[in-house]
Amino acid sequence: MSSKLTLDNIYKASYVLKNVVRKTGVIYAPKLKPDTELYLKTENLQVTGSFKVRGAYYKMSQLTDEEKAKGVIACSAGNHAQGVALAAQKNGIKATICLPDGAPISKIEATKSYGAEICLVNGVYDDAYKKALELRDEKGYTFIHPFNDPDVIAGQGTIALELYEQIPDLDAVIVPIGGGGLISGVAFAIKQLNPNVKVYGVQAAGAPSMKNSLADGKIETLSSVKTIADGIAVKEPGDLTYDICSKYVDEVVTVTDDEISAAILALMEQHKLVAEGAGAVPVAAVMFDKIDLKGKKAVCVVSGGNIDVTILSRVIARGLLMSGRSCHFNIELVDKPGQLLKVSKIISECGGNVTAVYHEHAPEGSDVNGCYLTVTLETRNFEHIHTIKKALTDAGLKLF
Amino acid sequence: MSSKLTLDNIYKASYVLKNVVRKTGVIYAPKLKPDTELYLKTENLQVTGSFKVRGAYYKMSQLTDEEKAKGVIACSAGNHAQGVALAAQKNGIKATICLPDGAPISKIEATKSYGAEICLVNGVYDDAYKKALELRDEKGYTFIHPFNDPDVIAGQGTIALELYEQIPDLDAVIVPIGGGGLISGVAFAIKQLNPNVKVYGVQAAGAPSMKNSLADGKIETLSSVKTIADGIAVKEPGDLTYDICSKYVDEVVTVTDDEISAAILALMEQHKLVAEGAGAVPVAAVMFDKIDLKGKKAVCVVSGGNIDVTILSRVIARGLLMSGRSCHFNIELVDKPGQLLKVSKIISECGGNVTAVYHEHAPEGSDVNGCYLTVTLETRNFEHIHTIKKALTDAGLKLF
Repeated sequence: MSSKLTLDNIYKASYVLKNVVRKTGVIYAPKLKPDTELYLKTENLQVTGSFKVRGAYYKMSQLTDEEKAKGVIACSAGNHAQGVALAAQKNGIKATICLPDGAPISKIEATKSYGAEICLVNGVYDDAYKKALELRDEKGYTFIHPFNDPDVIAGQGTIALELYEQIPDLDAVIVPIGGGGLISGVAFAIKQLNPNVKVYGVQAAGAPSMKNSLADGKIETLSSVKTIADGIAVKEPGDLTYDICSKYVDEVVTVTDDEISAAILALMEQHKLVAEGAGAVPVAAVMFDKIDLKGKKAVCVVSGGNIDVTILSRVIARGLLMSGRSCHFNIELVDKPGQLLKVSKIISECGGNVTAVYHEHAPEGSDVNGCYLTVTLETRNFEHIHTIKKALTDAGLKLF
Repeated sequence: MSSKLTLDNIYKASYVLKNVVRKTGVIYAPKLKPDTELYLKTENLQVTGSFKVRGAYYKMSQLTDEEKAKGVIACSAGNHAQGVALAAQKNGIKATICLPDGAPISKIEATKSYGAEICLVNGVYDDAYKKALELRDEKGYTFIHPFNDPDVIAGQGTIALELYEQIPDLDAVIVPIGGGGLISGVAFAIKQLNPNVKVYGVQAAGAPSMKNSLADGKIETLSSVKTIADGIAVKEPGDLTYDICSKYVDEVVTVTDDEISAAILALMEQHKLVAEGAGAVPVAAVMFDKIDLKGKKAVCVVSGGNIDVTILSRVIARGLLMSGRSCHFNIELVDKPGQLLKVSKIISECGGNVTAVYHEHAPEGSDVNGCYLTVTLETRNFEHIHTIKKALTDAGLKLF
């Protein structure tokens, strides 16, 4: 049924995708890592906001007329859903997407907007997946796997052809790994074009399924995954992606949620790009020295930008804290007039910009005459925070 | 001293800028305005995060060796500062930037990072401007005007050459207006290349200096300006930009801060692009029907992306409210057990997602036994909000 993955297939996919997907730009990013000649492949600016449409569209283009007439089914609450929905719409194929009923409103609406039929399933992802397979068997739909399929992988591999043209003398590619479809396509293609290019994979520390599997020499299944990079929160690699990664990927590293938040913030502030957690992990790996790229010419595949804006607000807040550009002080005050004035004066003199104040009178566990003040500030950096802290302490205030 | 603005100058600027600025991409944006074939010119992805580097660099490249040796000075707390700083660095020229001392920390740091000398001036913009002119006279620096200079305008006009190549059969260009440098360059160039292309300018409703001036047939000075689009908060157009706009710009429209917020949010969510207020005004004008573009092929120049992330958080919150995807309910409760449960149950059944709760006991002006509950929700749209509201009211709760 499925074809085999070959470089020719990837060239073919590139031809098929020509008028469907965007040949996304490569942006020079000197500030993210000054000692590396770093570029960003902006797949977050791809149609549907992620690379997934490449694999989904190419896969569907290879179906028989009979398969196309019956329609396709997929299970996803994220980028794959939107990729399949758009690819089906462009191919004139009926698509049904199963989602767990707790999926974010914004993702459901985005998928609907591409004309797919939505099937909300009571329960979690695994329940939705089971339902999708049931519908496949019942209705004769073709199931579009998010990663473990040679045609899907060939579609994702077209990114490598573009990179090879956009940056011919590249030393390294850094790619996110969830199930491993994207990196399988990219690594397979780039290593045939130039075996000297290093391919690094990046996973979230809370979902290191491919990393563990490669380390153990066999497919490992995580009992649970937890990360803000929901696009790569995958419990188990596919057998096909596992095989390709074990042959073609040089190293897999992990990054924490705090590191991912800092990378998302850096992409927004320095490059005006909205990246989702999964899209930002390669940048996090470079920023936080998980890979040695000193003096190299490297590209991070920013795989997608579909992040919920409410989560983005939280990530911004966390990123500012992480980089010393905001801080909270908890200050114990005596309950008498002039205390707030005293604190305000010191902070102002030090050049801190107050953005929020919370004042609580005699909270539980404190002296009945005591009160606590929590002040949130905009600051320049950690040194600036230290200066303000010292000024407050020197004035006899107790910080805790 | 200054050269005259000609199309040949703009071609020359394009040649000079070739290896300095990015030829920014054009992104198809079908969802922002379904009845228009709309594109975005992504100058927010330009080096320094805005188009300003084009004009600043070209201007400096045209200085005499003697002028270059003495150095340049500018006054700005925003994009012009960063554009001048980078352009000076690349030309090997010393740059001094005067800023009012209340300028945001992030902008000062960004300007410093391009190697410019920062001169913080006590007071507001006008004080910093005065200081810059003093230093010019004292030290022999060349003052780099942010917009009212033919070479600066020629640099900005290079955007039109790129657009003409990227979208040859364009019907309309929509451009932000602050002082008018960007639109002067774009309108001047595009109208020579193809006089049938319409050029629309967009200003913030709180800073309509060019619109008023064109309407009155002479330069008008606003006594004050107020808008979140700080990049175009300009009290008075230049005489040169005024003349060019009166000849080549077809129409100037305005947009409100709420409309700008909605446009910033739409650019982030649908196109993964961070735009500052000034950069989003053309999109706001299109989204909110300020210009009739039905069936036309149009491009919005997204001029910059240098927005403070803390402001961005606030814009996201406002944009969600504006589009019915979040709401606050203020509910009057009787002070007895089970009230919070009752409210929670109704909201949950309607599919609303609670993100914050504030519960106040007997606030000022209320019954001493009363209490108020403020609930913040994520919702699908205004219809969804209405449904939840009705369910709460039907259950006998009082909303106010």
